[in-house]
Amino acid sequence: MSKKAIVLFSGGLDSTTVLFQALKEGYTVHALTIQYGQLHFKEIDSAKRIAGDLGVPHEVVHLSLPWKGSSLVDSELKLPKNRSANEMETGIPSTYVPARNTLFLSYALSWAEASQADSVWIGANAIDYSGYPDCRPDFLAAMENVYCLGTKLGREGNPIKIKAPLVEKTKSDIVKLALSLKVPLEQTWSCYQGDDQPCEKCDSCQLRAKGFQEAGEKDPILSC
Amino acid sequence: MSKKAIVLFSGGLDSTTVLFQALKEGYTVHALTIQYGQLHFKEIDSAKRIAGDLGVPHEVVHLSLPWKGSSLVDSELKLPKNRSANEMETGIPSTYVPARNTLFLSYALSWAEASQADSVWIGANAIDYSGYPDCRPDFLAAMENVYCLGTKLGREGNPIKIKAPLVEKTKSDIVKLALSLKVPLEQTWSCYQGDDQPCEKCDSCQLRAKGFQEAGEKDPILSC
Repeated sequence: MSKKAIVLFSGGLDSTTVLFQALKEGYTVHALTIQYGQLHFKEIDSAKRIAGDLGVPHEVVHLSLPWKGSSLVDSELKLPKNRSANEMETGIPSTYVPARNTLFLSYALSWAEASQADSVWIGANAIDYSGYPDCRPDFLAAMENVYCLGTKLGREGNPIKIKAPLVEKTKSDIVKLALSLKVPLEQTWSCYQGDDQPCEKCDSCQLRAKGFQEAGEKDPILSC
Repeated sequence: MSKKAIVLFSGGLDSTTVLFQALKEGYTVHALTIQYGQLHFKEIDSAKRIAGDLGVPHEVVHLSLPWKGSSLVDSELKLPKNRSANEMETGIPSTYVPARNTLFLSYALSWAEASQADSVWIGANAIDYSGYPDCRPDFLAAMENVYCLGTKLGREGNPIKIKAPLVEKTKSDIVKLALSLKVPLEQTWSCYQGDDQPCEKCDSCQLRAKGFQEAGEKDPILSC
């Protein structure tokens, strides 16, 4: 089988770092961005620009979920702001999208099997994160078991693997890795909102800021 | 939690029987049909008619898969015909859609969690079937583990269950069950093709015919 990777690619800090890591390891990379009803398109615009600059084949798939259930996709729900590290560790916030990573990893599996890729890469992180259940190592292992049992390739003894190289890293380590891989950090978009500048208050902005601060680096996306 | 079920509902013999079984068991049922690029819409028309007659809330979700990899969604690939029972038992045919049931069960999980349902029902069968890897009990168990670990409800101790009441039944037993539940068999559509009458040659037609024959019943969908 070819050394081919499907990378789940949102255009944010984590998934862009994963994409660069897969390229560094010599994989032929196909990037998959999933539009699942987010309230803005800035992330997806970032993903398109970065994939285009790299010349990486890129698919944007639109998930039509008739149901809501998350403040990331429902403008009537409020985005949580300025949550403390302790709050992030102990509660699953309203930004959690039901079964999001299960759906993402299912789409990626389908493309991986249809295109004979040997792995799916995801930027999930369970250290500096919002407490989402579907970012944790036990969930990823359960999904990898589905990859094995639910596919023709898996049943034939060639299961597609899930690679989550950031899952046990701190955000500061991710920033350092991104810099070493020459990730164009100024082009990545992490904020849950789609304004001109990151809001600096949502979980995603706060985790990103913590990473840059602890790494002793300046985030190039922030104006001075 | 309410006794509420999401039923994956294609409009075929198996999933219609499952839908009637869930209703019989007293569940509030929401039916979910997934259009994944099949070459015809007869199945979906059947699903809409049956759900409408029952007054069951029904969502039809369109999966946009830019990749192919199956003769069910790619008109350039030939549908296998007149396969023997032995061939069905030993090989995974070209009608296998990469990760189809993984995707279906992921969508159903998302809706189940967003709507606080306690179970997802699927008409998977691993006795009289085409050998698909994602119809077997070990796959369904792996997916149920994902349901448990990948959701907020599961992490809080209320995992959504997968119910597959037909998985160990013969097709003949399914036909008998359907008749006992008064399933409108003449409205169900199983054929992989979308002609006026079932082709009677594809795996799905052949398995259905075997079921009716072994049950000693006549399939009302076939003209005399």
